[in-house]
Amino acid sequence: MTVLILTCEQDVTADLAVVELNANGIPVLRLDPAELPGAVDVSGEYAHGAFDGHLSVGGRVVAMRGLRSIWVRRPGTPATRSAAASTWLSEESGQALYGMLRCTGARWMNHPDAARQARHKPWQLWLARECGLPVPPTLITTFPRVAREFAVRHPDLVVKPVSGAHPGDDGLAVPTTRIRPGEDFRAVAHGPTLLQRRIRKTADIRLTVVGERMFAARAAAGPDTDDDAVVDVRFSASGVTWRPVPVPARVAEGVTAYLSRARLAYGAFDFAEDADGIWWFLECNQSGQFGFIEIETGQPIGRAVAQWLAADATDPTGP
Amino acid sequence: MTVLILTCEQDVTADLAVVELNANGIPVLRLDPAELPGAVDVSGEYAHGAFDGHLSVGGRVVAMRGLRSIWVRRPGTPATRSAAASTWLSEESGQALYGMLRCTGARWMNHPDAARQARHKPWQLWLARECGLPVPPTLITTFPRVAREFAVRHPDLVVKPVSGAHPGDDGLAVPTTRIRPGEDFRAVAHGPTLLQRRIRKTADIRLTVVGERMFAARAAAGPDTDDDAVVDVRFSASGVTWRPVPVPARVAEGVTAYLSRARLAYGAFDFAEDADGIWWFLECNQSGQFGFIEIETGQPIGRAVAQWLAADATDPTGP
Repeated sequence: MTVLILTCEQDVTADLAVVELNANGIPVLRLDPAELPGAVDVSGEYAHGAFDGHLSVGGRVVAMRGLRSIWVRRPGTPATRSAAASTWLSEESGQALYGMLRCTGARWMNHPDAARQARHKPWQLWLARECGLPVPPTLITTFPRVAREFAVRHPDLVVKPVSGAHPGDDGLAVPTTRIRPGEDFRAVAHGPTLLQRRIRKTADIRLTVVGERMFAARAAAGPDTDDDAVVDVRFSASGVTWRPVPVPARVAEGVTAYLSRARLAYGAFDFAEDADGIWWFLECNQSGQFGFIEIETGQPIGRAVAQWLAADATDPTGP
Repeated sequence: MTVLILTCEQDVTADLAVVELNANGIPVLRLDPAELPGAVDVSGEYAHGAFDGHLSVGGRVVAMRGLRSIWVRRPGTPATRSAAASTWLSEESGQALYGMLRCTGARWMNHPDAARQARHKPWQLWLARECGLPVPPTLITTFPRVAREFAVRHPDLVVKPVSGAHPGDDGLAVPTTRIRPGEDFRAVAHGPTLLQRRIRKTADIRLTVVGERMFAARAAAGPDTDDDAVVDVRFSASGVTWRPVPVPARVAEGVTAYLSRARLAYGAFDFAEDADGIWWFLECNQSGQFGFIEIETGQPIGRAVAQWLAADATDPTGP
């Protein structure tokens, strides 16, 4: 049974997983949907009551019914590196590839539908609450008046993008920023704005979950925490040190429930720890990077991913 | 409890449903996400363990927790009719609107995730088989050799777009076409191609399903059925007459299973009826039009949609 990895050519994280899988004798097929058709080919036949699909990369052919798991790492847009690239060809190629892969019994990390749902920040905040994780008071609005009233109740606010876009993701890079006192909020009418009570944090927490395994890392906040510039640890230049930290039982419960209801096999949770030791849910990135955490903490996250991908398909995750 | 209809301004089908709902005293809110923000506004607050969201259209404000159902009819792309339209604003506005609507307990026709999955033609063919519906032998491939071998086994073939795009949908209009004898299939290498054994049909069947109610219509094939030009009834100029027809019990069973597994509340199935009376599954369009069928057959499909939307939320459909 083969592990399928969908990712672009330059992907060190995928390389490491491939090494781990190879070392354990697990067959791996790695391909970039951007190279379909051409360097990557696909074929599937529906006949005699069954579906019979194949993938081909560089002359190597793998049966889709022999896929054990599918890792959607950093796949390119289908057909964009094909000789006759076009919007139409991308649509056709994406439908062919992902449409057929949806017919297999393979386990997904993560299933495309679960991944898409999981990107909705307003839904993340709702689900986190439903699962018992503490969420800072948050407002998403296009009404300046409502924003002003919220700011009266919660004078110490940060503003974030609603779409939860990350630095480096498709150019949609907007850091979390503190609101200045006296902000008039008129601009809120021009686009939905996410305002959140700022947590006076003692540390940032990154909790990476792979199947049922949890890896928590903590970066203590520096003395300049009250400065505007360092609200968002993802943008801080340096000086942040991540250390492994145990996961409180209630957080583990909440996170397990969250991933189960979200049908996710992988999630990278960001929390802000306050002076009382409470972990406040900020977001869950279903495709969050783990390399920087693994390097600093030595936590074997990549190995856990490889082990999840290599496991027998007894309990498929995903819709 | 209010029915929310997401659609563009010019939508006669939605107009009819609104008339029906109004006649029954059911409150309706209709909006086009393209007009967010500006003519449409949205607001949601997460506080004290609850989510409290509101929609506003033309000064009328509706609480999201008061939504009974959501009809995703023909919504525009979020924010595209806003004063400051941009890709970024569309992303933010879509996340805000659909992210919050995903937090409500409203029933969806159809849920966005179910709708997206349901558009995958390769998955449709697989699911139809799984549900016991007859599917013509079909091949989807980028291998010319495989296409040639398929054509030897099934000499009478049609070719279709993999993405199941419909005439008029975003310019992706490719009709189903018969394959000429002696086709060399070299072009298959340039893009995934869907080949299907042609059903020598006696009639086209359109089976529209609304919740648990089924409306089947039959259009007898004309004497020129063997002509290349009329394989695809959707492109035939005129002369097609739709008549109501009963749904065979096995088809009803298969279709019910299909919609349940696909988590769809609405589906428009296309079948080809052969000389033995077998209905061959061709596709299920989760947003298929029903106006032309209703006009010709008098089947009260629009009323069934309105009744589904107005029903009490005892059995939510959708993930």
